[in-house]
Amino acid sequence: MTMRVGVIGGGQLARMMIAPAVELGVDLRVLAEEAGMAAAPATTMVGDYRDAAVVLAFADTVDVVTFDHEHVPQPVLRELVARGVAVRPGPDAIQYAQDKLRMRARLAELGVPQPAWGAVATPEELTAFLADHGGRAVVKTPRGGYDGKGVRVVSAATEAEDWFAALAEDAGGGALLAEEFVPFVREVAQQVARRPSGEVAAYDTVATVQRDGVCVEATAPAPGADGGVGDEAVRVATAIAEGLGVTGMLAVEMFETDRGRVLVNELAMRPHNSGHWSQDGAVTSQFEQHLRAVLDLPLGSTARTQEWAVMANILGGPAAGGALEDALPGAMGRHPRARIHLYGKEPRPGRKVGHVTVTGPDLDAATRAARHAASLFTSRE
Amino acid sequence: MTMRVGVIGGGQLARMMIAPAVELGVDLRVLAEEAGMAAAPATTMVGDYRDAAVVLAFADTVDVVTFDHEHVPQPVLRELVARGVAVRPGPDAIQYAQDKLRMRARLAELGVPQPAWGAVATPEELTAFLADHGGRAVVKTPRGGYDGKGVRVVSAATEAEDWFAALAEDAGGGALLAEEFVPFVREVAQQVARRPSGEVAAYDTVATVQRDGVCVEATAPAPGADGGVGDEAVRVATAIAEGLGVTGMLAVEMFETDRGRVLVNELAMRPHNSGHWSQDGAVTSQFEQHLRAVLDLPLGSTARTQEWAVMANILGGPAAGGALEDALPGAMGRHPRARIHLYGKEPRPGRKVGHVTVTGPDLDAATRAARHAASLFTSRE
Repeated sequence: MTMRVGVIGGGQLARMMIAPAVELGVDLRVLAEEAGMAAAPATTMVGDYRDAAVVLAFADTVDVVTFDHEHVPQPVLRELVARGVAVRPGPDAIQYAQDKLRMRARLAELGVPQPAWGAVATPEELTAFLADHGGRAVVKTPRGGYDGKGVRVVSAATEAEDWFAALAEDAGGGALLAEEFVPFVREVAQQVARRPSGEVAAYDTVATVQRDGVCVEATAPAPGADGGVGDEAVRVATAIAEGLGVTGMLAVEMFETDRGRVLVNELAMRPHNSGHWSQDGAVTSQFEQHLRAVLDLPLGSTARTQEWAVMANILGGPAAGGALEDALPGAMGRHPRARIHLYGKEPRPGRKVGHVTVTGPDLDAATRAARHAASLFTSRE
Repeated sequence: MTMRVGVIGGGQLARMMIAPAVELGVDLRVLAEEAGMAAAPATTMVGDYRDAAVVLAFADTVDVVTFDHEHVPQPVLRELVARGVAVRPGPDAIQYAQDKLRMRARLAELGVPQPAWGAVATPEELTAFLADHGGRAVVKTPRGGYDGKGVRVVSAATEAEDWFAALAEDAGGGALLAEEFVPFVREVAQQVARRPSGEVAAYDTVATVQRDGVCVEATAPAPGADGGVGDEAVRVATAIAEGLGVTGMLAVEMFETDRGRVLVNELAMRPHNSGHWSQDGAVTSQFEQHLRAVLDLPLGSTARTQEWAVMANILGGPAAGGALEDALPGAMGRHPRARIHLYGKEPRPGRKVGHVTVTGPDLDAATRAARHAASLFTSRE
């Protein structure tokens, strides 16, 4: 029997599951928010993922349900589980990816290293937090943020005034998350996969470069991570996967501090931008691994196929307008080793529309080639 | 504008173009012989490729037409070209893949090394060919053969009686192809890509193992081929690609003789079984390369990503019946480095339903793992 995996959400993460699904003989089906999204080639239903009836109807057409994003409401997820649907990751795990306050509290229980944090329900509480943590803090809305949205660095409570006002209007009330501002050496990310039977597989720790809260570049392995911060990152990510009961891919974004330690910044329970290098640089990509994990199949080797893999995002499109595809001849001609991935999305300023990965024995050459090839999709050259 | 590539034929070669098409943002559309074939995930039309009206209607929906097989009749291809459709490879090239007598005659003109051969229209002519070539010959029907079909080793003209009778019944008449029986050391295959603008890219020469005329295993690179027979194989395949005006992938199957030379056995103007290793062992797979070539985009690097890549075919299905997929947990569990490809086809004895590729630094280990993983899909274990 062909195995049918249903993905809720029609973005590029769902799209990039298509290639390994076709190769493994898995029937991938996508519930997309609208027609013509990145995952259109596998979209079998269009509908609102907040509507339990829609999601249940979709779930009836597949063997296991997984996700392109973390936004499916808990009541909908709980109803799926109550109806006997295999939901991976399950609602008990996803709640920690949906609510950053809940995540911080649970990671604290698990003893996972993280920045000092607090729930601040009023400007006065934030002012007190600032006073206790050097006068600067990262304030986050607990829910709905991504790619830097819902995150602000503040040095006065007035800078989060609008968010407090929104909290006051919300009948549910609640609080914002305040975190100490961590002076970090660099940011790293750790991908691990976990399947329901408990098997865990970890990828190489990657070094990431963020700009305005958006990942623009990832290097695997993170230079110098071997045996040091890499081991710690794997230990932390594995503890989180097991502690939260994650199934599928888990990405843990961390700060590497000046003492060679890591502090957990963000989690994502799905394939993640920082793991895209694995499509071209590892035996098993994070997208195939996610399919294996949610189907409870044995996990594939995470070994690198080359010494280095560098991924550069394509953000936005041609400065002069026009189609992204117009840059293909130039990028391919200049960079025959570049692995180019386009998501079939309309370019808008800053929007993630593709990425380029270059692998090879020379880190500097791979980095320059990946950056330059990606830049050709957004420059006038 | 999204580039649209149309593939005529719904088999596994069309299916394996889906993954690179999705990643490059190419809209792949397939005209399949029937519904539910291997390329079903990309099938946009079902119809008879021998019907010019069907093929023209399909061509109207794409920017370039290419192929999963060589069986589209010349008049249909010529009509496409007359209507201004980009057909790659074009009819002038494909004729040599469609008719083995024509191919032999053209390769002779090009000075390409090949077995001694002759057109034999009668049993008497075959008897004379046998007498001139050591009493043994390979007889082939010039058209329609593949995977060992239409090929026979004979030592008497009576062994081809039925084929001569069929020739006599055919109003067109014609002849069979007789070739000397070549005592070879091993069989090798050479993949090259050529784009309309003339750029050619060659892969590593592979060693292939055939059983009953079907490729069962391929090793890249062919051990010991470097600089010797490998250079000759690249020279020969490049001469053929240029001499016949091939666009897209060209596979040349050759005999390596005991004198370290090669003699051309068969041609295929499309991705070929002997090149499947490139999906997991080369920077650019033959399927992506075919798309680049038919779209006249710059060709990708053909460099290997690992020292060795060994591909083993999955032929047939579970001895006890049942689904191929049932073998996935066992094969994945035993061989975490195995790259498993299933074609979504119903298993029948001897039918190609998938393949496994293992890459790595140890040829012997890769060979054993690929063979064993593939065998798990057809054994009772």
